[in-house]
Amino acid sequence: MASYTRTSSLKAGLPPGTPVHVGEQKADAVKITVVDYNPEGSREFTPESPKNCTLYRTAETVTWINVDGLHEVDLIGEVCSCFGIHPLTVEDILNTTQRPKLDVFDDYLFLVIKTQTYNPQTFRVEVEQVSLILGDRYLLSFRERPGDAFDGVRSRILGNKGRIRKMGADYLAYTLLDAIIDNYYAVLERVGETIEELEEELVGRPTPETLKKIHLLKREMILLRRSVWPLREVISSLLRDEELSQISKGLYFYLKDLYDHTVHVIDTIETFRDIISGMLEIYLSSVSNRLNEIMKVLTIFAAIFIPLTFIAGVYGMNFNTAASPFNMPELNWFLGYPFALFLMAATAGGMLAAFRRKGWL
Amino acid sequence: MASYTRTSSLKAGLPPGTPVHVGEQKADAVKITVVDYNPEGSREFTPESPKNCTLYRTAETVTWINVDGLHEVDLIGEVCSCFGIHPLTVEDILNTTQRPKLDVFDDYLFLVIKTQTYNPQTFRVEVEQVSLILGDRYLLSFRERPGDAFDGVRSRILGNKGRIRKMGADYLAYTLLDAIIDNYYAVLERVGETIEELEEELVGRPTPETLKKIHLLKREMILLRRSVWPLREVISSLLRDEELSQISKGLYFYLKDLYDHTVHVIDTIETFRDIISGMLEIYLSSVSNRLNEIMKVLTIFAAIFIPLTFIAGVYGMNFNTAASPFNMPELNWFLGYPFALFLMAATAGGMLAAFRRKGWL
Amino acid sequence: MASYTRTSSLKAGLPPGTPVHVGEQKADAVKITVVDYNPEGSREFTPESPKNCTLYRTAETVTWINVDGLHEVDLIGEVCSCFGIHPLTVEDILNTTQRPKLDVFDDYLFLVIKTQTYNPQTFRVEVEQVSLILGDRYLLSFRERPGDAFDGVRSRILGNKGRIRKMGADYLAYTLLDAIIDNYYAVLERVGETIEELEEELVGRPTPETLKKIHLLKREMILLRRSVWPLREVISSLLRDEELSQISKGLYFYLKDLYDHTVHVIDTIETFRDIISGMLEIYLSSVSNRLNEIMKVLTIFAAIFIPLTFIAGVYGMNFNTAASPFNMPELNWFLGYPFALFLMAATAGGMLAAFRRKGWL
Amino acid sequence: MASYTRTSSLKAGLPPGTPVHVGEQKADAVKITVVDYNPEGSREFTPESPKNCTLYRTAETVTWINVDGLHEVDLIGEVCSCFGIHPLTVEDILNTTQRPKLDVFDDYLFLVIKTQTYNPQTFRVEVEQVSLILGDRYLLSFRERPGDAFDGVRSRILGNKGRIRKMGADYLAYTLLDAIIDNYYAVLERVGETIEELEEELVGRPTPETLKKIHLLKREMILLRRSVWPLREVISSLLRDEELSQISKGLYFYLKDLYDHTVHVIDTIETFRDIISGMLEIYLSSVSNRLNEIMKVLTIFAAIFIPLTFIAGVYGMNFNTAASPFNMPELNWFLGYPFALFLMAATAGGMLAAFRRKGWL
Amino acid sequence: MASYTRTSSLKAGLPPGTPVHVGEQKADAVKITVVDYNPEGSREFTPESPKNCTLYRTAETVTWINVDGLHEVDLIGEVCSCFGIHPLTVEDILNTTQRPKLDVFDDYLFLVIKTQTYNPQTFRVEVEQVSLILGDRYLLSFRERPGDAFDGVRSRILGNKGRIRKMGADYLAYTLLDAIIDNYYAVLERVGETIEELEEELVGRPTPETLKKIHLLKREMILLRRSVWPLREVISSLLRDEELSQISKGLYFYLKDLYDHTVHVIDTIETFRDIISGMLEIYLSSVSNRLNEIMKVLTIFAAIFIPLTFIAGVYGMNFNTAASPFNMPELNWFLGYPFALFLMAATAGGMLAAFRRKGWL
Repeated sequence: MASYTRTSSLKAGLPPGTPVHVGEQKADAVKITVVDYNPEGSREFTPESPKNCTLYRTAETVTWINVDGLHEVDLIGEVCSCFGIHPLTVEDILNTTQRPKLDVFDDYLFLVIKTQTYNPQTFRVEVEQVSLILGDRYLLSFRERPGDAFDGVRSRILGNKGRIRKMGADYLAYTLLDAIIDNYYAVLERVGETIEELEEELVGRPTPETLKKIHLLKREMILLRRSVWPLREVISSLLRDEELSQISKGLYFYLKDLYDHTVHVIDTIETFRDIISGMLEIYLSSVSNRLNEIMKVLTIFAAIFIPLTFIAGVYGMNFNTAASPFNMPELNWFLGYPFALFLMAATAGGMLAAFRRKGWL
Repeated sequence: MASYTRTSSLKAGLPPGTPVHVGEQKADAVKITVVDYNPEGSREFTPESPKNCTLYRTAETVTWINVDGLHEVDLIGEVCSCFGIHPLTVEDILNTTQRPKLDVFDDYLFLVIKTQTYNPQTFRVEVEQVSLILGDRYLLSFRERPGDAFDGVRSRILGNKGRIRKMGADYLAYTLLDAIIDNYYAVLERVGETIEELEEELVGRPTPETLKKIHLLKREMILLRRSVWPLREVISSLLRDEELSQISKGLYFYLKDLYDHTVHVIDTIETFRDIISGMLEIYLSSVSNRLNEIMKVLTIFAAIFIPLTFIAGVYGMNFNTAASPFNMPELNWFLGYPFALFLMAATAGGMLAAFRRKGWL
Repeated sequence: MASYTRTSSLKAGLPPGTPVHVGEQKADAVKITVVDYNPEGSREFTPESPKNCTLYRTAETVTWINVDGLHEVDLIGEVCSCFGIHPLTVEDILNTTQRPKLDVFDDYLFLVIKTQTYNPQTFRVEVEQVSLILGDRYLLSFRERPGDAFDGVRSRILGNKGRIRKMGADYLAYTLLDAIIDNYYAVLERVGETIEELEEELVGRPTPETLKKIHLLKREMILLRRSVWPLREVISSLLRDEELSQISKGLYFYLKDLYDHTVHVIDTIETFRDIISGMLEIYLSSVSNRLNEIMKVLTIFAAIFIPLTFIAGVYGMNFNTAASPFNMPELNWFLGYPFALFLMAATAGGMLAAFRRKGWL
Repeated sequence: MASYTRTSSLKAGLPPGTPVHVGEQKADAVKITVVDYNPEGSREFTPESPKNCTLYRTAETVTWINVDGLHEVDLIGEVCSCFGIHPLTVEDILNTTQRPKLDVFDDYLFLVIKTQTYNPQTFRVEVEQVSLILGDRYLLSFRERPGDAFDGVRSRILGNKGRIRKMGADYLAYTLLDAIIDNYYAVLERVGETIEELEEELVGRPTPETLKKIHLLKREMILLRRSVWPLREVISSLLRDEELSQISKGLYFYLKDLYDHTVHVIDTIETFRDIISGMLEIYLSSVSNRLNEIMKVLTIFAAIFIPLTFIAGVYGMNFNTAASPFNMPELNWFLGYPFALFLMAATAGGMLAAFRRKGWL
Repeated sequence: MASYTRTSSLKAGLPPGTPVHVGEQKADAVKITVVDYNPEGSREFTPESPKNCTLYRTAETVTWINVDGLHEVDLIGEVCSCFGIHPLTVEDILNTTQRPKLDVFDDYLFLVIKTQTYNPQTFRVEVEQVSLILGDRYLLSFRERPGDAFDGVRSRILGNKGRIRKMGADYLAYTLLDAIIDNYYAVLERVGETIEELEEELVGRPTPETLKKIHLLKREMILLRRSVWPLREVISSLLRDEELSQISKGLYFYLKDLYDHTVHVIDTIETFRDIISGMLEIYLSSVSNRLNEIMKVLTIFAAIFIPLTFIAGVYGMNFNTAASPFNMPELNWFLGYPFALFLMAATAGGMLAAFRRKGWL
């Protein structure tokens, strides 16, 4: 939680626009990959020096430069300066505690998105920041660490599958966004499975462990929501703003589809939140029901023995039967003991009958 | 729940626009029915091959092609290609986890709607997706399985009842939407009856079973709401957007009526939600009241016996009366035992009186 | 509740615009009354046949046709056809499960309003639907049963009181709406009185009956809210839409006043809801406080007797005092019994003091 | 509460615009005061007859007519008729159950505001209605009873302090509104002090009395909110509507300031509401914590004595030691009694240790 | 809390625009510092008399006048009058209970902002008000006390670091706002750390102290939110209003960045609020779980001993075995005592088995 804000304070006191890497270092070394393509062909390579990137700013081909790892501030700065990126954008790329957003600059669009991927090594969902810079014929993408989320897109370009080689950098950006949103579905699926498991636990025998899981799930939904809500605004403003020169008209239906998917994700998150709230209520009332049932049975149990013990206590009194005929004559009766036992049995039976009549059993 | 999202991840990694059937297969075979009509006449038939559909794209008659079953991806693709449908639309038709929505394309409108029908075989409400494609003189409808929801409309066309044969494809689409919304009323009615039954249970003797039913109802309302809210937006945008060439001016009042019905359905859902929340509160407080009543009575019961048992215990002590005149002289009194019994009765009576005076009984 | 939706399903499968009476039959026979007036004079009569109504559509006088009872579908249909009313409007008039709304047609405005009247025979608030059709110089009103809500307006017309005879059909419609909203005030007053009574009960001795009343009140507020909120939208759109030819400019201040009253009613409903929620909280915490108080006192009571009974139990043990000088020598002490009683009294006193010091008493 | 709506029903059945005094009579006699001023001079007097007011409608000076007391319907009517006030306005002035609002008429603006003043005689906040009618060079103010809220303004006019004499009637209206909002601050201050006192009570020893006070405060905030929220809308529409001829351009900054103050008041109310809700939670959980603590200690106390009493009971059994060497040989042991006492002490000690190890103590 | 409103009532009765210092005096003496700069040079000095400030109103250099301490009303007034500041603005500067806001005057913009700084001396977050007046080439800043928040900015100007010397007064204002928002991040970080600590406490052994801390945190979030929400509106209107002559076009990206940061702060506050609410729930349910566990174990414990004590009581009865063979023959059995002990053990064992079978253990 706090890790969302912790390192931001490193920047307090620095002039705005100073490039500082804010966040964990998640990659060993910064790795730059260039994919350059047009309908006729494509190639992928690692540039020798970031300065060579300048060539691609004005090239006729579509150029996709992907940067994995953000801790080498100068390197990132050089790549950005090739494309005339504003210092504030560079600062935002390096600060991984950003909120998803769209900034419209004269030359390019700047998008910050959060991805959520399930890391099988750590068994946890990991939030990562992806920054996209969309220019006229180039796309820069910055990620915190290398990953396979964009591999499918890369192989489609290099293998010339689908329509991607025929489209511009805007379609490439759309494809990357689509891949990121598909990842959200995967996370939601996992959450949905967990919900189903928890519901079976709730129907069976819920334990305090169940409660802990429900709360963890609830918090995960809070964080997920925090990532996706602003994403919807981002795509919505891409759709609305018709004067963005970087987005071609033909992309409208694709962006609309992307928007629908985002709304669907949000919708599912909200439904899950409602269901999780309901599960919490069920848990609490079922635990309380269960305990009440136990307490009720035990209290009734105790209530039945209380008068019996009292009777036994009475006949355990030591009044001197010799001193007076009124002093506990039952003790000397021929059937005194059976009478006492019968009295106890009758009392217990009468109480059971009364409790049953009142519907307490 | 999870089934809403589970199969979506099949698509992760595929290029956007790839047609994949996402969802359960609910029909044995895909069945295509064509209803072709104009004011003069009408006919219904099953086309030999989906390719024949191309004829109807430009025909002067109104053509309604209904497809039941979505698992034969190629067949659906062929039907759609006859009418020049966008790949993204085909993808959406095949993905049954969509959210209700309206997509406006140049040639056609694409609507996704959720129907909720009560299946008497499974005793459950089943959610199904219906996709409508409304072109100039044709309407394509895609359903997950065959059903009778559209039979009334079909027989009205074939039997020339009402004004349907005189109107265009837009009126046909409206009639299908109207039939779907009428189904929501049926579901709400069943919910309303269940609420009434539960209220009688609540007034009578509520059981943990009642609680389970309330929670099931609550969840059903969450899912119902999720289906209907976006439907309202869909119809609202049909109403607002005056430049949709597929919708004729004369349909305005019908769509307005449809909109009012949808708002009424939403309104009823919200009222039901409020009432169900109130029922939950009543249940919880009534169960807790009931238990408290039992606990109170038993505690008072125990409290009365506690001093009596103490008195019996005192006179059960074995102090040697012979050792001193101070040692339990009561044991040798002539009326010792009656005195002890009277002491007990007086104590019990006094406590009962005190409890009654305090209003605890 | 369920009765809100129950009979709506009668219509499932029928073509849209089919006139069916949906709702309870609340009147014995349908009764039509015509009031016809201009600044010079006025008259009231029952037309022989609904067909005669056609005359009034174009007459120079203002004509108010009131219909009480909705179950004779054909009769209503004939009245409406005289004025060229759209089939969807006729369907809506007959369906008494509508939501308050305003439909703007070319020739007329169609308003659906809910009235709430206190029926002293049944001791319950009854919801009724009133439909108004406002044309250029005519007003049609449809009610579910005869009532006295409009009597004041009728007598003002016939007795030429106030400015009503000098104004058009729009002012007449305003006056009827004003009468309906005045009825809401009466209902709210009754609710306000019930709240005051319940508050006195809460301050005094609250019973489970009090809880039931609070819940009933809460539900009544839900239903009331459901009737009034859409009414506000209706009047608001009458105010906003300046191109409605049926509404003259001079009516603006009156409609604004009506709007203010509606907002005031809504405001009061919301305040009542807040107060009722607060009362529920007070009830629950006061009941729980009360029970806790009882339980605490009884538990302390029991706790004091437990060690006393233990002491009595100890001196009731049968160790053979003759076998050893260590075996319960107290039993043979001269002051053994007083010592035991003192021990008990001291224990009880000490515990009482400890409890008091801890603030438990 | 109910008094908000009670007397409104007096009007049911009357034609709209009928002047009826709705509300309590709070003043002995209606008192009219006229303050007439321009930059050169000012005078204050009580007019002989309300008819004389007509003079001031067109006079070049600024005229402020203040009316205290609303029960003399005819008098109010006469004053209003001098200035050509609409009958609906007169009706609203007399009805003290209005909601704060702004009505724009051709000749004048009509404002209804609620004041809340702390009455040291009754120790309660009293809500009063103030109506302002702002014309070109006149301002009419109507209050339910005489008060000192406007005295400061009057003395500033008569003493020519500040810029008030140089400004128009709109500035005068602003000054009165400013005085009313300053009163809200005073009420909020009192509430803030009460909150501080209650917090000290909560930290110390909270009683059911504390709960009652929290609930009273909560309700006071509901009512306060109900008065101030619409006031914000009123001032906001004064700011927005640039075509109001009664408001001069120069007043903009003053109204903006007024608006900021109102938003500040609302903001404080909302913060107080949040804090009061938090206090309620603290109270409930602290009371429940306290009770639980008591119950836990007592239950543990009882649990320790239960086995001890059982042991005493065992050695109180009357098995015939003479009949068999197996029958309670302990009774005849030399150290039988010390052994039993030791057994009891060991049991108690063991249980205490176990409870402590489990963290229950 | 109350201190937010307490001193505001000092002003009740005073004419609007009267300069009164509302708030605590936090500085010893009012200190004025002037920083005057252009791209060529810069100097910092303390003016001899506030009247000298007039020079800077029209100077070609950018002038930043910072005032620390607000209690010398006349001094502040003189500074303001040099720049032709409106009396209402002066009043607002002096009143430290303002809400963050933006007032647009013809000559200048007036901003009120709240800063939150962590005071290590008092271990508390302290809220302070900063007022900024932005004119064409001058910026006035007013703070309640001297602090180091602006030191970084000052040293950047004097040391000519970054682009600040080349930009106008609007960039200076932006830099100060940026410094203030950076401070919010620091506060949020501290809150985040506290949340992490509290979560560890919750997982470990929560105490009533934990609850108190959660509530304190909750309230701090309420107050924080109250400071930041309006700030968002302020920056948003700076962004939207394109006609503000004081803001140059080139500042747009900087303000957009500032806006994003503010939204990020708000977002984090909302997430923290959600998480804190969740923690409260976890605390309450974990405390209640824990208590229930104790109560359950103890009740079962008691329930097992109840029948044992009863059996002991039965064999403690004093029936005369000599009077009849039916009177407690067990007492004279050879294995009577072992039989009784076995009976007790069997009862206890049977109950334990039954409880275990029911899942109560």
